[in-house]
Order: sequence, then structure tokens, then C-alpha cells
Amino acid sequence: MNSQSDLAETNRLEAFSDGVFAIAITLLVLELKSPHLEEGERLWPALVNEWPQFAAYLTSFAILGVMWINHHSMFRQIQRADRGLMFLNLFLLLWVTLLPFPTSLFAEHLRHESSNARVAGAVYSATLTLAAIAFSLIWWHVLRRHLVEHTMSAAEVRTSLVRYSFGSVVYAATIGISFISPSATLLIVFLLALYYGFEQLRTRD
Amino acid sequence: MNSQSDLAETNRLEAFSDGVFAIAITLLVLELKSPHLEEGERLWPALVNEWPQFAAYLTSFAILGVMWINHHSMFRQIQRADRGLMFLNLFLLLWVTLLPFPTSLFAEHLRHESSNARVAGAVYSATLTLAAIAFSLIWWHVLRRHLVEHTMSAAEVRTSLVRYSFGSVVYAATIGISFISPSATLLIVFLLALYYGFEQLRTRD
Amino acid sequence: MNSQSDLAETNRLEAFSDGVFAIAITLLVLELKSPHLEEGERLWPALVNEWPQFAAYLTSFAILGVMWINHHSMFRQIQRADRGLMFLNLFLLLWVTLLPFPTSLFAEHLRHESSNARVAGAVYSATLTLAAIAFSLIWWHVLRRHLVEHTMSAAEVRTSLVRYSFGSVVYAATIGISFISPSATLLIVFLLALYYGFEQLRTRD
Amino acid sequence: MNSQSDLAETNRLEAFSDGVFAIAITLLVLELKSPHLEEGERLWPALVNEWPQFAAYLTSFAILGVMWINHHSMFRQIQRADRGLMFLNLFLLLWVTLLPFPTSLFAEHLRHESSNARVAGAVYSATLTLAAIAFSLIWWHVLRRHLVEHTMSAAEVRTSLVRYSFGSVVYAATIGISFISPSATLLIVFLLALYYGFEQLRTRD
Repeated sequence: MNSQSDLAETNRLEAFSDGVFAIAITLLVLELKSPHLEEGERLWPALVNEWPQFAAYLTSFAILGVMWINHHSMFRQIQRADRGLMFLNLFLLLWVTLLPFPTSLFAEHLRHESSNARVAGAVYSATLTLAAIAFSLIWWHVLRRHLVEHTMSAAEVRTSLVRYSFGSVVYAATIGISFISPSATLLIVFLLALYYGFEQLRTRD
Repeated sequence: MNSQSDLAETNRLEAFSDGVFAIAITLLVLELKSPHLEEGERLWPALVNEWPQFAAYLTSFAILGVMWINHHSMFRQIQRADRGLMFLNLFLLLWVTLLPFPTSLFAEHLRHESSNARVAGAVYSATLTLAAIAFSLIWWHVLRRHLVEHTMSAAEVRTSLVRYSFGSVVYAATIGISFISPSATLLIVFLLALYYGFEQLRTRD
Repeated sequence: MNSQSDLAETNRLEAFSDGVFAIAITLLVLELKSPHLEEGERLWPALVNEWPQFAAYLTSFAILGVMWINHHSMFRQIQRADRGLMFLNLFLLLWVTLLPFPTSLFAEHLRHESSNARVAGAVYSATLTLAAIAFSLIWWHVLRRHLVEHTMSAAEVRTSLVRYSFGSVVYAATIGISFISPSATLLIVFLLALYYGFEQLRTRD
Repeated sequence: MNSQSDLAETNRLEAFSDGVFAIAITLLVLELKSPHLEEGERLWPALVNEWPQFAAYLTSFAILGVMWINHHSMFRQIQRADRGLMFLNLFLLLWVTLLPFPTSLFAEHLRHESSNARVAGAVYSATLTLAAIAFSLIWWHVLRRHLVEHTMSAAEVRTSLVRYSFGSVVYAATIGISFISPSATLLIVFLLALYYGFEQLRTRD
């Protein structure tokens, strides 16, 4: 297999993934519902009252956006795609495409800080944790199969693996936090997305 | 980083944005509902009676189409993508992907020229204003970080910045107009899209 | 403007259009509804009874597929994209993205051959007619502005324009046929899609 | 026609197909419904009780993912696209885009192992069988018209044709199995997707 067809391979994999990210991030809007108004009820307070669906929308948008940028950065370093990479990438996309469902579930139950809100928060966090694990597995596979463009020192390899594992652990922790306060989960996840965004701005720009 | 990978970077950013624009413009149709007919009711008058949803559909389609062309023109002049550009572009796409929601909200309330229609019009206009501000921020960032392909004179820089700021101001004005007449807002926004379309036809063709 | 950036221009226009066609053709499935069954009612007869939605789905899929191939063929001959082409292409995409709505409307009313079915058929045919007119306008613009890759003889120009106008006239005729028999409209439109498909297979392969 | 435009042709066909696969795989999530809870009802058991929709989602995701990888592998070997290939590819995409409908139908009826569940399973299996037949037809056409990149021995041709026919036969068999146990159909189809995935990992990596 020559290196030009390798590149075509990773390009098509990236294009497919970009398509899935673009669609998932755009489908989130379908979960936003116009408030059902009673005769004479005012729209503005009804919209404000639906803050959980807007907060969940914004958070999932930020996560998918940062994930896309991460995916982008990762695949820039990948020179070849093998079947294992394709399947692990599909495993990641499974959680990406699923995200609108737990987003909607969380938005629906978030308001009440009830036990159902805690379950919905945990389902949401678990989906993100699984996506973070998928990222780790992809990177681990890429290093093990020497699919990267450049040689990395043992220290660089370790640092990069720790970095991805850290993400998985943090998201897993929000599963637990959901059982204390679902709203806190949403806020932490949103702040994490901002942090990852700015951290990347700082280190890699 | 060599210039070829820079180009690949902007290309993937454009491809992702094109995907989001294409999906958002196509999802608008999901907000169009078949009229619910009573036994013996005629379809044609019922469809005509639903003119607000068709007017809102057409307007949002025109805006997203013109925005896509604008995005296209802007990115043709951008030679390199940095992280800041990626995040500002995501900020723009946030409002692009959100647009089907205020479109649907506006269509639902437009008919009555009630206070709710005014609120729905203001939400719609505010979304467009935020998108226009995002365009300004992207262009300002691109100039400040010298990501453009060519050198621009101080006068050209000033003209281009004024041009983008003008768009933000005009859309912000329609927020106010919504409180006078929501229908006027929709008409003005539609005419603005046509104007931007033809103005570009004239100046850049 | 050098020819390489011209090519990039048409490539991005094609990629955006391909995205819209791909999304519109895939969104059609969202209009298919599972039959609502009463206690003890059997699924198979209920599905068979919903033949209009499957017939309308298949017909719209065939039309969008053939339109995409047509668009593809047309743009292979186009070497440069100007603003006029971009706007006429958006005019075409307006009817492409709208198609799931009249498809759903037609499917809902087709069963009864009532006056409402005739209106729904006419709305469906009118959408297709407007798409056919958009194709004619694009081709006319492309010829007038010399955006094609090769020189065409006056006879070839005339033949190609007649060919596109013919499509518009045939679809316009189905608007009238809808007022006689809506089912006949659906059948004729489906056969037209097959005919255009096979005619292209024959003449251009 | 020179070989560069041939390549552009297959590239655009692949890009369109990738778009359709990416959209279909992402639209599956729209069929997932939040459980409707009664006052005081708990979310977690309600979610667990909806296992059929998650099982059907996962299975259809796996199938579309593997189909995409297959499509990818097949088109890597195809050097030229003719009109016949375009139409057969559309025939394949018809079943790909339709899949969310039988998935939803199957999920709705799977729970009860009733005669309706058997019909839903058979409709699901029939859709997959038709997709498998479409794959066989594409490959048969590609070989017959010598659109592949390389020469294949008669034995290789026979092996590849048998391989695709085998898929069609296996999926056709699951139509019959649906009439014995719809749950078994879902499990077998899921295991088939995993098998095809791993089999490709082994033979082609």
C-alpha cells in the first residue's frame, strides 16, 4: 500500500467523522421544543422557564465542538488508517451520535433535582465518559500500531496517554456528582468543555 | 508547520462548516407542519392560512444561504487556521444551528401581532444579531493574527471592519423593530438577505 | 483569479450542494410514520394500507437521486463559479430542501382521490416544476456567462436548452394532471425519474 | 475522458455516499424516545424497560457502520464510475436511508414476541437483505464493466462474488428466523455485523 492511498484512507475517515459530528451538533436543535402556552400565557417567562433545555443544548454543543477539534488534532498526527482504527472510530461515533438523546433526557428532568434528574445526569455523564474512553482507546491503538506521522519519545507517549486517561476519569467523576447535584454536573461539564478549549488554545496554537 | 498542512487545516474547517450550513438549511423543512384538517375542511385555504411558516422558512433559508456565501468569501481570503479561529467559528455555528428553533417559534406566533409575536420576533432577530457579531469577531481575529492570504491597506482593513459592524447594527435594530411590528421584522430581514446577495453580486463578481 | 482557485470554488459549491442533496434524500425517511395500531390490530395490513407514504417516499427518493446525478453532470461541465451561479444554485436547493414537505402532504392526502389530494398533488408537482425551472436557469446562466469547460456549437447550445425546458414543461403538465388524478401524477413523476435515469444511461455512459 | 476526471467522478460518488451513510447513522437517534413517566414513576426502570429501542439502535448503528466500511473498501478498488454504477449505488442508498424506519418499527414491536413483532422483524431483515443484494449487484456490475483498478484472476472474481452472495443469503435467512423469534433476528444481525467487522480486520488489515 503506498502512502498516497494511506492518506486518502485517513482523509475519507476524517470526512465521514466530520459529517457525523456536523450532523450530531446540528440535530441537537430538534430537541428544543417551543413552550406550549395556555390561552393568554406570555411567551417570555415560558421561554425563561425552559432554561434547562437551553443549558443542556449549549453544553452539548460545546462538548461536541471541542470533541470535533480534538478529533481533528488527533487525526492530523495520524498518517495511516487500519481497520482497527476504523472500528474504534466507529465506537467513538456511537457515543457522539447518541448524545442528542441523553441531552434531551437530561433537559427534561433537570429542573426538579429529583432522583430522576440524578439518573438522567448520570446517563448523560456516562455517555460522555464512554466517548472519552473511546478517545483513549483510539490514541492507544494509534501509538501501538505506529500510525502516527512522527516519532514520539517515551515521555511524550506517556504524557499523551495520561492526558487522555485524565479526561476519562474526570467525566467518570461527573457520574458520581450527578447523584449529588445534576445541575452541578451540567455546569462542570460545560466548564470542562471551555477548559479543554482554552487549554488547547494555549498549548497548541 | 508548512503551508500545505495550513491549507489542509482551513479546508477541513470549511468542510465542517459547509456541512453544518447544509444540514441547518435542510433541517428547516422539519419545522413545516401539514395543516391539521377537520372533516370536510379544504386543504388549499388551510395551507394559505399557514403563510407565516412558509414566510419564516423562506427568510431563514435566504439568510442561511447568504451567510454560507459570506462564510465562503471570507474563508477564501484566510490562509491559515489557528485555534482562536476554530473557536470563533464554532461560536458562529452555534447561532447557525440554533436558527431552526427561533424560526419555528416566530412562525408559530407571527400571525397574531400579539406581545408574544413581538417576543418571538425579538428572539429571532437576536439570534441573527449574534451570528452577525460572530462574523465580525472572526474577521477581526483574522486581521489581528494576520491569517489572511494577502496584505491589506489600512483603508481596506477599516472598510472591511465597518462593513461587518454595519451588519451587526442593522440586525440589532430589527430587535427593536420587532416590538413595533413582528411582520415588518421578517420582511426587513428577508430584504436584507436579498440586498446582501445582490450587493455581493455587484461588488465581487 | 487563477484557474486553480476557480476549480476550488466550483468544488466547494458542489460539495455544499452534494451535502444538501444527501441530507434531503435521507430526511425523507422522517416523514414515514409507524402505523398506529389498535389493540389486537395486525401490523402487516396496516403497513400495506399505508402504501401512499411508501409510494411517495420512493418517488421523491428517485427524483432527488436523478436530480443529484443531473446536477453532477451539469457541474462537471462548469469550469468557473460566479456569484450568479451561486444564487441560482441556492434557488434550486430551495426546492430540493422543501421536497420532504410536499412529499409528506401528498402521502397524507393521496389515498382519498379527494379535492384535497388534487391540491396536494398540484403542490408536489409545482415544487418539482420550480426545481426544473431552476435547472434551466442555471444552465442558461452558465452558457450566457461562458462558465463551461469547452466550446459548444450553436446547435449543441440549442439542444441542451431545449432539453432542460422540456423537463420544466413536462413537470408543469403534471400540475394539471393532479386535478384529474393525483395517483396518476405520482406514477408519471416516478416514471419520469426512471426515464431520465435510463435516458442518461443510454446517451452519456 | 481522462483518468483524472474519472477519479473526480468516483470521489464525488463516494463523498455523496459517505454523506448519506453519515446522516442515516446519525438520524437513528431521532427514533429514540424519552420514556413517558407517570407522576412519581422512576426513570431508571422505565429506561431499562425500553431495552428494545436501545438494542435496535445499537444493531442498526453497527450494520450501517460496517456497511460504510464495506462501501469504502469496495470503492477503493473502483477506478471509474459509469452511470450504471451511479444508479446501482442509489439503489443501495435507498435501503440505507430507509433503515431508520424499520429500526423504529422493530423497536416498537420487539418487546411482545407477538405476530406483529415477527412482521416487524421480517420487514427489518428484508431491508437488510435488499441492501446486501444491492452490494452484490454493484460488485457484479463493477466486474462486468471492468471498473476495477487492477486485474483479478477468475478465481478471485468467483471468490468475491460468492462472498457478496453469501451475505445476501444470510440476511434472507433472517427473514425466516423472524417468524420463529424476532429477538433472535436482532441478535443474529448484530453478531453478523460484528463478524463482518472482525473478519475484515483479519483478512484485509
